[in-house]
Amino acid sequence: MGRHHHHRDGDTEEEHAAVVEQQVGEDAEGQPAASTESLAASESEPLGGTQSSHRLLAYSDALISIIATVMILPVAHTKMENDEELTQSIQLLLTTKIAVYLMTFLIVTVAWAAHIRLFQVIVRIDDCVALLNLACMMLITFLPYTVGIGLTFDGRVRQVRQVHFLSLQFSLMATFPSNVLGILLFCGCVMVMGVIQSAIVLYAFSRPFLLNRHIQESENRAFYKHHILKVLLRVPLMCLFASIFSFILFQLSYVLLAVVIFLPYISQCVKWCRGKVIGPLEETPDSVMFYTYLPSEPLSKERVEAFSDGVYAIVATLLILDICEDNVPDPSVVQKRFGGSLVAALQAYGPEYLAYFGSFATVGLLWFVHHSLFLHVTKATRLMGLMNTLSLAFVGGLPLAYQLTHEFPHESRNELEAVQTSCVIVFFAGVFQLAIWVVALHNERETLHPSVRYGGPEHVFMLAKLALYPCVALGTFFLTCVLSRFSVTIFHLMEIIVPFAFLLLRLLVRVALALLRLLFCPRRGEPGNMEEDDTRVPFNPLVT
Amino acid sequence: MGRHHHHRDGDTEEEHAAVVEQQVGEDAEGQPAASTESLAASESEPLGGTQSSHRLLAYSDALISIIATVMILPVAHTKMENDEELTQSIQLLLTTKIAVYLMTFLIVTVAWAAHIRLFQVIVRIDDCVALLNLACMMLITFLPYTVGIGLTFDGRVRQVRQVHFLSLQFSLMATFPSNVLGILLFCGCVMVMGVIQSAIVLYAFSRPFLLNRHIQESENRAFYKHHILKVLLRVPLMCLFASIFSFILFQLSYVLLAVVIFLPYISQCVKWCRGKVIGPLEETPDSVMFYTYLPSEPLSKERVEAFSDGVYAIVATLLILDICEDNVPDPSVVQKRFGGSLVAALQAYGPEYLAYFGSFATVGLLWFVHHSLFLHVTKATRLMGLMNTLSLAFVGGLPLAYQLTHEFPHESRNELEAVQTSCVIVFFAGVFQLAIWVVALHNERETLHPSVRYGGPEHVFMLAKLALYPCVALGTFFLTCVLSRFSVTIFHLMEIIVPFAFLLLRLLVRVALALLRLLFCPRRGEPGNMEEDDTRVPFNPLVT
Repeated sequence: MGRHHHHRDGDTEEEHAAVVEQQVGEDAEGQPAASTESLAASESEPLGGTQSSHRLLAYSDALISIIATVMILPVAHTKMENDEELTQSIQLLLTTKIAVYLMTFLIVTVAWAAHIRLFQVIVRIDDCVALLNLACMMLITFLPYTVGIGLTFDGRVRQVRQVHFLSLQFSLMATFPSNVLGILLFCGCVMVMGVIQSAIVLYAFSRPFLLNRHIQESENRAFYKHHILKVLLRVPLMCLFASIFSFILFQLSYVLLAVVIFLPYISQCVKWCRGKVIGPLEETPDSVMFYTYLPSEPLSKERVEAFSDGVYAIVATLLILDICEDNVPDPSVVQKRFGGSLVAALQAYGPEYLAYFGSFATVGLLWFVHHSLFLHVTKATRLMGLMNTLSLAFVGGLPLAYQLTHEFPHESRNELEAVQTSCVIVFFAGVFQLAIWVVALHNERETLHPSVRYGGPEHVFMLAKLALYPCVALGTFFLTCVLSRFSVTIFHLMEIIVPFAFLLLRLLVRVALALLRLLFCPRRGEPGNMEEDDTRVPFNPLVT
Repeated sequence: MGRHHHHRDGDTEEEHAAVVEQQVGEDAEGQPAASTESLAASESEPLGGTQSSHRLLAYSDALISIIATVMILPVAHTKMENDEELTQSIQLLLTTKIAVYLMTFLIVTVAWAAHIRLFQVIVRIDDCVALLNLACMMLITFLPYTVGIGLTFDGRVRQVRQVHFLSLQFSLMATFPSNVLGILLFCGCVMVMGVIQSAIVLYAFSRPFLLNRHIQESENRAFYKHHILKVLLRVPLMCLFASIFSFILFQLSYVLLAVVIFLPYISQCVKWCRGKVIGPLEETPDSVMFYTYLPSEPLSKERVEAFSDGVYAIVATLLILDICEDNVPDPSVVQKRFGGSLVAALQAYGPEYLAYFGSFATVGLLWFVHHSLFLHVTKATRLMGLMNTLSLAFVGGLPLAYQLTHEFPHESRNELEAVQTSCVIVFFAGVFQLAIWVVALHNERETLHPSVRYGGPEHVFMLAKLALYPCVALGTFFLTCVLSRFSVTIFHLMEIIVPFAFLLLRLLVRVALALLRLLFCPRRGEPGNMEEDDTRVPFNPLVT
């Protein structure tokens, strides 16, 4: 069989190699029709009590992606008024809620990055690590709530003060407990998380077969352990100080918490500066691989994909969640309003459905672009991860903007603003996806598949895919500025055209290239790669 | 390199084999620290325009799992009254909503099973299939809403009629349009989905390199195509009839829709009966592999895991979604209520947090059991999938039950009922997980890893893991019956003890086995496997 021949003796070999051997064994046996399953099955083969971490990480990614996007819901449920201008207080409230959303997204993605880093060191798990990780997840999912408490109170109080700034009925001290409650809960969560993660690290280092092969075989495993623990415990320590200061001077604890979030960047800066002043520190050469916080530090591509999938999936269904939750109106009301007419009922629900389908299609197509891009990415780095996070943060706001598009009366100023906001959000979501690719191109030998590197046969096509949404959004934005009366019509046309543009993209790109070649004489056209495109790209199977 | 040597010529080889070759190539080169990434990277290697379907399916699973659990939210938001008994009208409303939830869950999982079946035939995708699939997903995510409209109206009207059953102010005809609207929307969705799926099948059969290797190499590919199309188009056709009948006699269209959902089981029954009467039909021997609807039909284990992960993740965060959405109360109210006291504020929020942590821990541990079980499953079947779906449907109700536990006044009858409902839900969720294993054991050679088969070293341990939650839930249930005054205390104790029981499970099982061996003399103890356990299971690393 060659399948389990080396599993019994509790070997410390890399699971990866085991997977390969098993697969080879299975393929030689030529089992048909079980191709997709066998990969998964062999990957999760138990090995003397330890397990592949694959599914644990997938579950964690799903949880974290849900939690990262949760805070968009309070923004969505802010009551909009139908007057010509959004009133100032609503705008303030909205700003606070959007700030809470972005803050939560940032904090959760930082926690997620720390989780990735931890499980790049610990590549196999056992029951104990799985249970500890679940405890850790519980605390991460609680974070948005603590941030919500802290910032919402702060924001509301500031807002109230701004309105009644003469009658100081809300003194600073009055809001003390709520503010402090938020900070304390947040710091408490982070501290407990730090303790749990340290426990996981200690546990894993006491059972080296759970570790990354590189560390497992390394001479100075103790150095790694101390380095990782030092990095891990820095954050809870800061939080401890923050929670102590929250009783004395809570502004200071906000500063401390901001430092916690940007800690990797700050420590990177400090290291760089120190390097310039004193000269480079002597380090163990292989310490560079983990917990370095360099922009080129590898980030598990699989997990970036899983996290992005989760966010796209939640965001795509956000509107239907909302529609389903509000439930359908009372039958008697419907009876009165529509008088038994099916057409009237459908017309009344129409805009809601349209908003749902529009936002689903846009989010789905942005996912499609992301998917196409990551098919060609061979290694993800921290900087690419950052661009991806920014793109996802904008995607989160998308269903909202789409919903607003249909909520205001026709041809009002609010409607135009809603349409333009949607365009801006789509534009930035698309531009940051493009930025991922640009960052990847900077180091294309390591991060990209040859076919999309500069000069590769798929290069132009990928560029077109990534540029389509930003271009269309920009075009729609300017069109709505000029033809403001038809803004909604233009917007709907855009929604309908874009999916077909994606379907026919290969054809469009080829036509565009042919036109370019006609304009510039083929000898001195694009340098080399453009002409070869025709011969290298097999004829588009879409157009038959 | 050995990495891309066979990718250019657009070969029709199984992608799986390619993955293995690449991995072997990479391992021989001995690239360190990229182990987790390389698997993902090589899996999604582009191959002349076609792509691995892995991520498309993961995204689809995420979407479908969110949508399957959406309809629990209206149940959660039904206002509970604090009087001694739930009033009858609320109970009716709740029943309707729970029916909508279960119905949606059922329908969505049926759609999901159809999706799995389709993508077991089509194993590679290109851009066109990806876009068509997204359109299909859009329609699937819309299904719960249509079911909600249809059933809620029907339910509410029936409820109103039950209350005022003398004054027939709501005649049957009055509710006509809403009912029909639901049915028409549902049927419309299903029909469009059928058309899109047929388009995907036709497209894939015109490009055979997208197909499963088995079908690709088969002689009678045309037969497969017709068989699959026939099965696919049966459902939209039924829906067409249902939508036509909805104008004439909508009860009949309900019957037709019920037939649609249970179609696989019915057709299986019919086939079986016909086989008994006329004798077995002559079939192409290899047609048995796809679209058979036999209980032993293989179900992609990877997708069952992905779907379950999605459901567990959504359900685990359901309460925090709720807490975050309701947002924190007004600062002035808090100021009045707590008078600036931090402790009072924490005490007031306490029960909510407790409910959240309790439900998260229970869902997380049920996920953990599921994860442990599926680590040892090598192949999933339809029947196992059914058991899994039932288990997940109960898991969906769990956070709700936990929330109710803390909502009613202390020592009221409602509180006791809430606690007991929670126990019942946990019990069934656990029992159906156990059922998956029992089903798997029936055909253990095909579906289970040797170590958990009957007589394997991990068999008893797995049984203990799966039986822990049902036993604890049953125990708690009976304890609360006897000591009804301390029901909440018992419930909280259970919540706290269970995670530790999981942590120390290996130890507990060994102690139990040792006790059993002490009681019965070792000669005539458990037949064989029990004694060998001791030698085969390495000493538990948890207890040092």
